[in-house]
Amino acid sequence: MNRYDVIVIGCGAGGYNTAIRASQLGLQVACVERGPDIGGAGLRTGCVPSRLLLHASALYDAGRRRKHAALGIDGPPTLDLARLMAHKTATVQKLSAQVRQRLRAQHVTLAGGHARLDGAGRVIVTSMNGAQQTLSAPAIVIATGSEPIPLAAAAFDHARILDSTDALSLDRIPRHLAIVGAGAAGVELGSLWRRLGARVTLVERRERICHWLDHEIAAALDRALRRQGIGIRLSTEVVRIDTRADGVSLALRVPQDNAPATLDADAVLIAIGRRASTAGLNLASVGMWPDRDGALPQRHASTGIWTVGDAAIGPMSMTKAEEEAIACAEQIAGLPGFVDYSSMPAVLYTSPEVATIGKTEDELRFGGVPYKVGRCALAANAHAAIHRAPEGFVKLLVDARTNLIAGAHLIGAGAAELVSQVAVAMEASMICEDFARVCHPYPAWSEALRQAAMAAGGWMMHG
Amino acid sequence: MNRYDVIVIGCGAGGYNTAIRASQLGLQVACVERGPDIGGAGLRTGCVPSRLLLHASALYDAGRRRKHAALGIDGPPTLDLARLMAHKTATVQKLSAQVRQRLRAQHVTLAGGHARLDGAGRVIVTSMNGAQQTLSAPAIVIATGSEPIPLAAAAFDHARILDSTDALSLDRIPRHLAIVGAGAAGVELGSLWRRLGARVTLVERRERICHWLDHEIAAALDRALRRQGIGIRLSTEVVRIDTRADGVSLALRVPQDNAPATLDADAVLIAIGRRASTAGLNLASVGMWPDRDGALPQRHASTGIWTVGDAAIGPMSMTKAEEEAIACAEQIAGLPGFVDYSSMPAVLYTSPEVATIGKTEDELRFGGVPYKVGRCALAANAHAAIHRAPEGFVKLLVDARTNLIAGAHLIGAGAAELVSQVAVAMEASMICEDFARVCHPYPAWSEALRQAAMAAGGWMMHG
Repeated sequence: MNRYDVIVIGCGAGGYNTAIRASQLGLQVACVERGPDIGGAGLRTGCVPSRLLLHASALYDAGRRRKHAALGIDGPPTLDLARLMAHKTATVQKLSAQVRQRLRAQHVTLAGGHARLDGAGRVIVTSMNGAQQTLSAPAIVIATGSEPIPLAAAAFDHARILDSTDALSLDRIPRHLAIVGAGAAGVELGSLWRRLGARVTLVERRERICHWLDHEIAAALDRALRRQGIGIRLSTEVVRIDTRADGVSLALRVPQDNAPATLDADAVLIAIGRRASTAGLNLASVGMWPDRDGALPQRHASTGIWTVGDAAIGPMSMTKAEEEAIACAEQIAGLPGFVDYSSMPAVLYTSPEVATIGKTEDELRFGGVPYKVGRCALAANAHAAIHRAPEGFVKLLVDARTNLIAGAHLIGAGAAELVSQVAVAMEASMICEDFARVCHPYPAWSEALRQAAMAAGGWMMHG
Repeated sequence: MNRYDVIVIGCGAGGYNTAIRASQLGLQVACVERGPDIGGAGLRTGCVPSRLLLHASALYDAGRRRKHAALGIDGPPTLDLARLMAHKTATVQKLSAQVRQRLRAQHVTLAGGHARLDGAGRVIVTSMNGAQQTLSAPAIVIATGSEPIPLAAAAFDHARILDSTDALSLDRIPRHLAIVGAGAAGVELGSLWRRLGARVTLVERRERICHWLDHEIAAALDRALRRQGIGIRLSTEVVRIDTRADGVSLALRVPQDNAPATLDADAVLIAIGRRASTAGLNLASVGMWPDRDGALPQRHASTGIWTVGDAAIGPMSMTKAEEEAIACAEQIAGLPGFVDYSSMPAVLYTSPEVATIGKTEDELRFGGVPYKVGRCALAANAHAAIHRAPEGFVKLLVDARTNLIAGAHLIGAGAAELVSQVAVAMEASMICEDFARVCHPYPAWSEALRQAAMAAGGWMMHG
């Protein structure tokens, strides 16, 4: 039997970061991966390929719409989708190889195969060829990630009824792509294919897109997506999907009688969420039961079993996975380890970009927290004028009792990088007045954040 | 006589920000501008037009060098310089009009004409048509900005011997542009014209470019510029410039005998620095004398005269001007006002971008401060891989005695926005360990900063 200090099951962002940090802290670590590749969904079939295609599609769309003609720069671009997809695959392989190299540098043992718990402290690994080995360790970390949830009405066929992995690997641009679910994956993948030339329709059962977003930001994003020609059907349920040789037909239950009850498309992407991949782990052998979404608690103290990332309760993101991984490894090593879920940023790489951290206005209102709002439109920002990207705004929410920053919600160019500044300020428990006094280079997007902080304090300079 | 609480002389970044903040604090403010337009050099002939042309040139250069071909996006762009310049002018006018509107909203009185001190508390304004008026106020703020320094060997003729304003308004792309001085203006304007297609040669009397930068960053920038085909002649003095109908000829004093002693070009930009524009103010009437660079102290307490921005002692930047303006107005209003010069970022919008804040390694070493270095190459950053911009690195300097961040030096894509995060952390007196624990969206440039902070603490995760 192979003894380790820690066995990590799954080699995605949760798993490899746990393994690296634990190893840095002097622990002997084995990491079990059942797939042929390491890196996990985020790196292989999620954020990374999605972000790469979003980046490319934004470049292509800007050229096609002659965005830079006013700057005297013109010339319609050509698109070679096969080359783009090949580059995407190569980039994923490269990043995956970097992870492998880091694990090797940290002397983490990689074991290939399916992991099954065998009581506390024991994991049986069955490789592709059926060979079995038993690993043991006082600490076991479940980092098995998540998988797309199929629609009740129709299973994935990966040809016409797609999951997000499929939708990141299409070999031609669909004429019309229907997307069920206008959450993060839905709006990002919709943006991407729209910008590459497809007609896109989002179908969302709620009455708004990205329901967890601050209301005002979600409304601004909705308007922006519609302006880009993306169809959005809210308060609409998909009751049936019929596939044909040349497409799909969605039967819809719609709120108004006058809206059509079917939607035809070349293919449909089901983007209604993900569930924790915790089946087949033999959790019963350690007396653990997942919740109805498959998720497990971060710590199951009596058995020495930990869970990190998408497999653990809470929102799903590489950011959360990495934070939980670090904290988990540190706790296993006997150090303090802590995840501050209240200052964890989330980003949508749509056009315009969206970034958010902390509480929304609704959450503050419903929580009875008195608050101030500081708002700065990008139209007032010199960098935005220079980049001809005046769309969007920055909104800072300040707890009126303490003057601490309670949340920030950004829509517009630069949002994804700016939000980290707010994360720093929140982690430092910086009051809004001090945040407003931090000086920024000129011209830069980050000035908008400062102006919003000034606005919350009633002394905006560039309003 | 028109009585105010504050008279501000000059309506650039130092002046208009002083006027706005003072007015916000309930003071009656007059602002005197001698030029036909407001906004100052930064907005009209400095950062803003420069940044705009740099942005456009980067887009053009990326297209011309087929930077996105690997992403399947191709098609050489065309360049219409006249249209670009027209757009630059329109953008400057728009931002200038925004400033005018803000001043109006704050009920600041704008007086056009040349201002001349007439003892403490009095300013005589002479308008273009010769009309004179006397304004009085207990507080007078000199915000007259700065102007380019000519080379001793040759005055500006604005045709072949150019200042930075001229070099931002060329009506055709020079075949060969020589630039004397490889400081901020030299490397930015050199990058811009190089990217638009010119041959560019930088001539610098020091033994390195951008001498105030951290050594390692300056060296990396030097290499990057040379790779882009920019000629760099270090330790070289210009002793004479001869103009011809079709160009200029620079006589050089060079360190090695084998280097050529002349350099021919279509035109030469003199970018050896700027000096405070404080002549003609009748400073003697209040018993003030500028230093040999024309600069004045920030406060001359006995007379109620203040100086902000480029006219005041210290480095020249819109950032400094804005900070000094706010602090000055607050002090005049009887509030505490303070400029923290130690955490003021500076940016070069070259390719790759450069951003810097706090102490350099040399400054720490010469100051006898024990320090740790945390470094993260962008090659290890997923966002950089996605954007195919792996060039550059982030370097964090940490005071080993306190674990506080002493400085940060960044070269690479995203640098200009990332540096503000360090500014927030420094203002919050955040120790490096806490900075390393701030969580960031994935993938984002800002992760590189976190990894550098981890590296300084000896636990880099993505090294």
